[in-house]
Amino acid sequence: MCGIAGIFNHPEASNLAYLCLHALQHRGQESAGIVSSDGVRLHTFKAMGLVGDNIREETIEKLPGASAVGHVRYSTTGTSEIKNAQPFVINFSGGSLAIAHNGNLTNAGILRKELEASGAIFQSSMDTEVIMHLIARSSKKELIDKIMEACSRILGAYSLVFLSQDQMIVVRDPKGFRPLVLGKIGQSYIAASETCALDLIDAQFEREVEPGEFLVINAHGTRSLKPFASGATKSAQCIFEYIYFAKPDSHIFGRGVYEMRKGFGKQLAREEPVDADVVIPIPDSGVPAAIGYSEETKIPFQMGLIRSHYVGRTFIEPSPSIRHFGVKLKLNVVRDVLKGKKVVVIDDSIVRGTTCMKIVKMLREKGGAKEVHLRISSPPIKWPCFYGIDTPTRQELVAAQKNVEEIRKFIGADSLRFLSEKGLRWFKMQNPSEEFCDACFTGNYTVDLPDSPEIADYASSLQKFST
Amino acid sequence: MCGIAGIFNHPEASNLAYLCLHALQHRGQESAGIVSSDGVRLHTFKAMGLVGDNIREETIEKLPGASAVGHVRYSTTGTSEIKNAQPFVINFSGGSLAIAHNGNLTNAGILRKELEASGAIFQSSMDTEVIMHLIARSSKKELIDKIMEACSRILGAYSLVFLSQDQMIVVRDPKGFRPLVLGKIGQSYIAASETCALDLIDAQFEREVEPGEFLVINAHGTRSLKPFASGATKSAQCIFEYIYFAKPDSHIFGRGVYEMRKGFGKQLAREEPVDADVVIPIPDSGVPAAIGYSEETKIPFQMGLIRSHYVGRTFIEPSPSIRHFGVKLKLNVVRDVLKGKKVVVIDDSIVRGTTCMKIVKMLREKGGAKEVHLRISSPPIKWPCFYGIDTPTRQELVAAQKNVEEIRKFIGADSLRFLSEKGLRWFKMQNPSEEFCDACFTGNYTVDLPDSPEIADYASSLQKFST
Amino acid sequence: MCGIAGIFNHPEASNLAYLCLHALQHRGQESAGIVSSDGVRLHTFKAMGLVGDNIREETIEKLPGASAVGHVRYSTTGTSEIKNAQPFVINFSGGSLAIAHNGNLTNAGILRKELEASGAIFQSSMDTEVIMHLIARSSKKELIDKIMEACSRILGAYSLVFLSQDQMIVVRDPKGFRPLVLGKIGQSYIAASETCALDLIDAQFEREVEPGEFLVINAHGTRSLKPFASGATKSAQCIFEYIYFAKPDSHIFGRGVYEMRKGFGKQLAREEPVDADVVIPIPDSGVPAAIGYSEETKIPFQMGLIRSHYVGRTFIEPSPSIRHFGVKLKLNVVRDVLKGKKVVVIDDSIVRGTTCMKIVKMLREKGGAKEVHLRISSPPIKWPCFYGIDTPTRQELVAAQKNVEEIRKFIGADSLRFLSEKGLRWFKMQNPSEEFCDACFTGNYTVDLPDSPEIADYASSLQKFST
Amino acid sequence: MCGIAGIFNHPEASNLAYLCLHALQHRGQESAGIVSSDGVRLHTFKAMGLVGDNIREETIEKLPGASAVGHVRYSTTGTSEIKNAQPFVINFSGGSLAIAHNGNLTNAGILRKELEASGAIFQSSMDTEVIMHLIARSSKKELIDKIMEACSRILGAYSLVFLSQDQMIVVRDPKGFRPLVLGKIGQSYIAASETCALDLIDAQFEREVEPGEFLVINAHGTRSLKPFASGATKSAQCIFEYIYFAKPDSHIFGRGVYEMRKGFGKQLAREEPVDADVVIPIPDSGVPAAIGYSEETKIPFQMGLIRSHYVGRTFIEPSPSIRHFGVKLKLNVVRDVLKGKKVVVIDDSIVRGTTCMKIVKMLREKGGAKEVHLRISSPPIKWPCFYGIDTPTRQELVAAQKNVEEIRKFIGADSLRFLSEKGLRWFKMQNPSEEFCDACFTGNYTVDLPDSPEIADYASSLQKFST
Repeated sequence: MCGIAGIFNHPEASNLAYLCLHALQHRGQESAGIVSSDGVRLHTFKAMGLVGDNIREETIEKLPGASAVGHVRYSTTGTSEIKNAQPFVINFSGGSLAIAHNGNLTNAGILRKELEASGAIFQSSMDTEVIMHLIARSSKKELIDKIMEACSRILGAYSLVFLSQDQMIVVRDPKGFRPLVLGKIGQSYIAASETCALDLIDAQFEREVEPGEFLVINAHGTRSLKPFASGATKSAQCIFEYIYFAKPDSHIFGRGVYEMRKGFGKQLAREEPVDADVVIPIPDSGVPAAIGYSEETKIPFQMGLIRSHYVGRTFIEPSPSIRHFGVKLKLNVVRDVLKGKKVVVIDDSIVRGTTCMKIVKMLREKGGAKEVHLRISSPPIKWPCFYGIDTPTRQELVAAQKNVEEIRKFIGADSLRFLSEKGLRWFKMQNPSEEFCDACFTGNYTVDLPDSPEIADYASSLQKFST
Repeated sequence: MCGIAGIFNHPEASNLAYLCLHALQHRGQESAGIVSSDGVRLHTFKAMGLVGDNIREETIEKLPGASAVGHVRYSTTGTSEIKNAQPFVINFSGGSLAIAHNGNLTNAGILRKELEASGAIFQSSMDTEVIMHLIARSSKKELIDKIMEACSRILGAYSLVFLSQDQMIVVRDPKGFRPLVLGKIGQSYIAASETCALDLIDAQFEREVEPGEFLVINAHGTRSLKPFASGATKSAQCIFEYIYFAKPDSHIFGRGVYEMRKGFGKQLAREEPVDADVVIPIPDSGVPAAIGYSEETKIPFQMGLIRSHYVGRTFIEPSPSIRHFGVKLKLNVVRDVLKGKKVVVIDDSIVRGTTCMKIVKMLREKGGAKEVHLRISSPPIKWPCFYGIDTPTRQELVAAQKNVEEIRKFIGADSLRFLSEKGLRWFKMQNPSEEFCDACFTGNYTVDLPDSPEIADYASSLQKFST
Repeated sequence: MCGIAGIFNHPEASNLAYLCLHALQHRGQESAGIVSSDGVRLHTFKAMGLVGDNIREETIEKLPGASAVGHVRYSTTGTSEIKNAQPFVINFSGGSLAIAHNGNLTNAGILRKELEASGAIFQSSMDTEVIMHLIARSSKKELIDKIMEACSRILGAYSLVFLSQDQMIVVRDPKGFRPLVLGKIGQSYIAASETCALDLIDAQFEREVEPGEFLVINAHGTRSLKPFASGATKSAQCIFEYIYFAKPDSHIFGRGVYEMRKGFGKQLAREEPVDADVVIPIPDSGVPAAIGYSEETKIPFQMGLIRSHYVGRTFIEPSPSIRHFGVKLKLNVVRDVLKGKKVVVIDDSIVRGTTCMKIVKMLREKGGAKEVHLRISSPPIKWPCFYGIDTPTRQELVAAQKNVEEIRKFIGADSLRFLSEKGLRWFKMQNPSEEFCDACFTGNYTVDLPDSPEIADYASSLQKFST
Repeated sequence: MCGIAGIFNHPEASNLAYLCLHALQHRGQESAGIVSSDGVRLHTFKAMGLVGDNIREETIEKLPGASAVGHVRYSTTGTSEIKNAQPFVINFSGGSLAIAHNGNLTNAGILRKELEASGAIFQSSMDTEVIMHLIARSSKKELIDKIMEACSRILGAYSLVFLSQDQMIVVRDPKGFRPLVLGKIGQSYIAASETCALDLIDAQFEREVEPGEFLVINAHGTRSLKPFASGATKSAQCIFEYIYFAKPDSHIFGRGVYEMRKGFGKQLAREEPVDADVVIPIPDSGVPAAIGYSEETKIPFQMGLIRSHYVGRTFIEPSPSIRHFGVKLKLNVVRDVLKGKKVVVIDDSIVRGTTCMKIVKMLREKGGAKEVHLRISSPPIKWPCFYGIDTPTRQELVAAQKNVEEIRKFIGADSLRFLSEKGLRWFKMQNPSEEFCDACFTGNYTVDLPDSPEIADYASSLQKFST
């Protein structure tokens, strides 16, 4: 996962890009970067780590100009290196060009081999670089045409902001996997992954960039192009953005994230009530769903787990006698809330299940809970995501390996329930035409996976079977 | 404010001290330090900044030995310098000695002048150094006697952990201003400011160190001394630890902090109800009181403000057109929760009032709240603290300068109410013999202030008047 | 200018590369880098600054494998950036490849435009990158054939060491502008710019790499290829390496540098004697020529100027009243040697003349010299170098703008004499078949300058005229 | 050893102090520090490492005011820590005071125990701190009187510069072990260890500070006090400053260092001539003596060893097969100068002998020298220095353990000769009344050694015996 932002035509462009990245920090903590244009040259700053730790006043001073593009990158399983940090900048026959990419291509491996065979030199291991080589090799004259030609070759999820010396080009893939919104401050344009970035800089929300849209912003104004056939742009917005990834104060895909999460919690309460004394969230991601669950069941909501604000970036492992350690650095129990109580614990999702296991143990042993009932405000995650969420392989996904009862035993809860796949769509009644990607729950991959033929075959055989 | 921890007789002493400091990080973010003893020499590490950013595995390796003392320091108004970081270590005729101090002395200035006049050289501007000079100059033979002699000269608030080559000495001032608890892991002793530190390292809570107690811990076991006359040790525990400072998952002064805060919220609801649609906290410190207020009033609790986890340490000021900036980096509104609603906002206290003002504005302008009713779960802070809380001067304390209605206007709320001084003591019904220091609300300074004669005189004249 | 080194088949390859770079530090202080191969992967380290400041034991540990290539880079006039540091590494269809380059191409600009037009993306502004793109686009099968094809396209000066996963390829351009020597330690091969690098690691000097030679070193042994027609490889070794650039303890181009410099000094004495009391060098580069001048004239040699060992990398400019400042940080006079004396000062060359001017002033004003006679052990530098020496433009070269008498006045010496162009070749009597490049003195550019057509035309018109 | 500098009444005081330290860098590379006074407060900067690496423009900006004192410290055998860096600053009843000390006290240990027994707390392990405690405890009123009282208690070598808010006090011990000179720039006063510091900043040399002199410099002008009885101030200037320590371009103790060294070389030639082909120095310290030896014997002088300018601060040890490593990083042979020759090698002194041994081996094996005759321009060092030169113990001093023939064998030279003790005084004919300390050669310790009773007894018993 990543967060992206672009600013066009503002005297403090790189400063605003910095603030947007700050607001989008939850979308990626591995690296942060900003490229600005002063109309003649692009200026670049990239660093490993957090925005607030690395970008300083003197950094901003070295990023002059009225337009800028920024990027925060999530730590993925591969080696994390500065050369994989974005925005990625190239010099080519068309001048200088920067790109910030949120999403993941599903045919980058095949395209890369093809490009290398004809002499291309790659600097990084990012799929994003493939897009840049396709642009550099395009025989089209205009930059926007080069970009559209390049995008006609790629598959998968891509929300993109390009910055050249004199224009910003904003792109969202035809399925619209990742969010991308547009805002304005006076005559300045802002593109950002989520509305929380617009809020921080007092920008006015304009609209979402549409799936399949190419938006050219330059001195002559804005121009919107939609080169894909309309069939190609049937929407596949990522429902996991609502469940976990996006910030609760953002609006994306047309709805407020906080209300969606609370709604999942209410629906979960309707589907899976339980007789209990107290509802507690796993903070902070479980809070809205827990409030919803409490509202629906009338079981009192309490903060039975307190989250530390100071989870450091370096962990020193203590003696083995100190168990469940990673979780303890982050969370501690409030014994007065839990002691002798039947406790409903709400979390947004289960990936590997190990953290949940440690928390349940802690609630019992240190908190003194009498019963622990775990309720998850989304269905079991059984399939890896190829569209930009950093989920582990099927081997590591506990719900791909165990059924619900086996997971319950593994975690040690008195009961465990997930939101149903149907319940996940409670909000669809309001607008049945929308389409969401739920491949992580269903294996229903809506865009082909040429780089991963085996899993694609397996998932599709199961799909056929289930149909 | 500061956090302190001591470990005696554990093979991973400095690692445990590091973890305790991590758990106590909320008590001080300016500097962090650990001193360990290998039985022969003391080993020191100190750095400006956070525990997790500065203390690494290699740091711990350079702090060998079975005992250790640690300290985190709060940013005060003076220049913050590494030489004022603790633990403070001296070499003197009695060998090497480290001290970690939480609290503030009220006669350090007078003692310092006296010591300097007879040739003492000071390394820092800390009041703590005065204690060390008194110890170095004591004619007593034993270290504990030197320490008791030194403490007989000082006034004010002091929870102390001393570490020499072969013993740990734990001290709490006769009034017991600051918390200090004692725990055990097998045969190892742990002293820490709050129980949350014990929880993180799986230590068993034993008891609180008593006001006026001197506890000597060495290879021969533990010895408790109480040299002060019992009249001198009438307790003056800091009620502000309950209101704001301590971590909600801690137990101090015999009670759970979370339950105390929720209780202040409930009492506030009884005293100052209001007709409204939603109760929201200013996160995170206002959360327990808001839950209490909601429980008592039945007005639904929601997270109408979302706190960022990534508030960086460096702020770059944007253009003046971007208003209320510092607050926005930390908090954003959830518009769906607030729009068109009558909102009760719960905060724990008001110091300068400027942050509240910005939040109220944000709730209206960005959140669309129809009415904003501010409820504070403690009385107005009118007096500076001389016992270790870093409150500003009377000039900067808004409640020392304005009455409640004037503050309401300044902040821009539709209504503003504080918990009453009497309401603050709701819990006293359970145990009327306890005594708390509430000087920040009342000006009733229970320990003399020789270094600050003017404010002492003024407060005492008002006290007489009010009596 | 740059220094390069390659090690093949030694268990401490990267350590030896580090030591070679240390010995070659005088050839470049801007950046240093090492790439090692463990047979499977290349490992890279590059940093701005000196070898000894940046490469540490832990750096070497992260550069595993039995082969390595290293590079030190000289500060040139352009922006100095880490992305222009070498060795330069690419990933392409043929795998991974590192290059270290000493020299300068004269048609890199033209080739770069051509490559960009067909879609190539450049990462740096180095001419070296052009070679890598030519290799990546070669349709040949074997790496050596790709490299030979690429080198058939480039013009100018290039001593190269390539490192792939399993072989080292060493190349010297057909004119042999820059030195490159070959050594052995047991069964390990070492390539280095100068013999001083071999001395430091106790390697046995084998021979010089020949102009136009391509040497492939791998597990099967070594293979030497000479693809250029013999007419193309008429030698144009850089005489300025003897005069100033190489280290005096090195042997390059078949001779010892110290003896060459002393010889220039003796020849200068024969051509331009003077009646004086003392001969002093400008240390350290002028020392051997001054010893030669003293031997020939019998005027006593003294160290009348003392050089500081600690010329820092950061200069803080003092008040304007402190004159001639940069020189003073580096040199100071020995008044007892100079006072009231007729002094002959020997330097190796004059570029801008400003440093000489400051030294002459210092010798008179602080040293008390009665007369200052400046003798330069090379002819006036009138032409920029396009083959790898970082000389300034003709506008900045004092000898391209002024005649000898005008330079003397500018510098303020009592007399000024240069070695004659003919005298520069005193040693040629021993071996008249050798050819040297003396374009900086004569404008006789032996390899075409397609990237610099104007200066090429001007120089060639003057050449015709002078013939 | 250390270097010290003080500036009084100059608008760029800390900048000039920085430049003086730069010029005195050869006197200490372990740490560097500057304290400035703006008339009200002292401002401090200290860092481990070189002046040029650590002090930058922004450092100077943070050291405001018209007076400053600076210090560079030599790496001694003990742990090198920032807390032992100077200038050392205290706050005491008399205000703030900084001290920079060159030299070593011989009764600091005894005084320290005495001070600690009466309650003093020490911050460092430096003898210098004892002086500050004596000052802080003095009952005198005026600072100069406190300083004179403190100095009446201490024994040994001390050149001192004190800086308070409003005055600079310059002190030299009654024996005058270490140099200290006085200069002026207009109405500004400069004190510095050597004249090379005055040269760099264009200051006019005024005079040496006299042994036993206390010089008070403030707004009222200068005042010179000489409190010691004249018998106490019989001079014991350190002859090793002439032999090795001072910079050759400096004048100290009334003579030029370069001429002294050349004179030692000439005298050595007169005492110990040898039939040889070439005279070479061990650069740079042996250069002047080698020039003297060559002048006297008419054997040609050559640079047969080339010194690297880039000896890094970090050494990575290579494989054991690479012998004599430390020396090779610094020196390499010029084979053309040495091959088949009888070589005289001149060095200034022999301490442990191990470096000489490596050089002799290198001259033979890599240089091809036929014979190597080592000539040392000072007598054998047999006794440790207690007055500020960092010589090793008698166990490590090769000349304390072996006779000349044994040393020759150890080093592997064909012959080895030292300058005689009498020859060392060749220059005394000019001024027989001067007295020098030559304890390192003779064991004749002119100031008592209360902290080192054993060696004092042993040396004095030998002295008696030899008389």
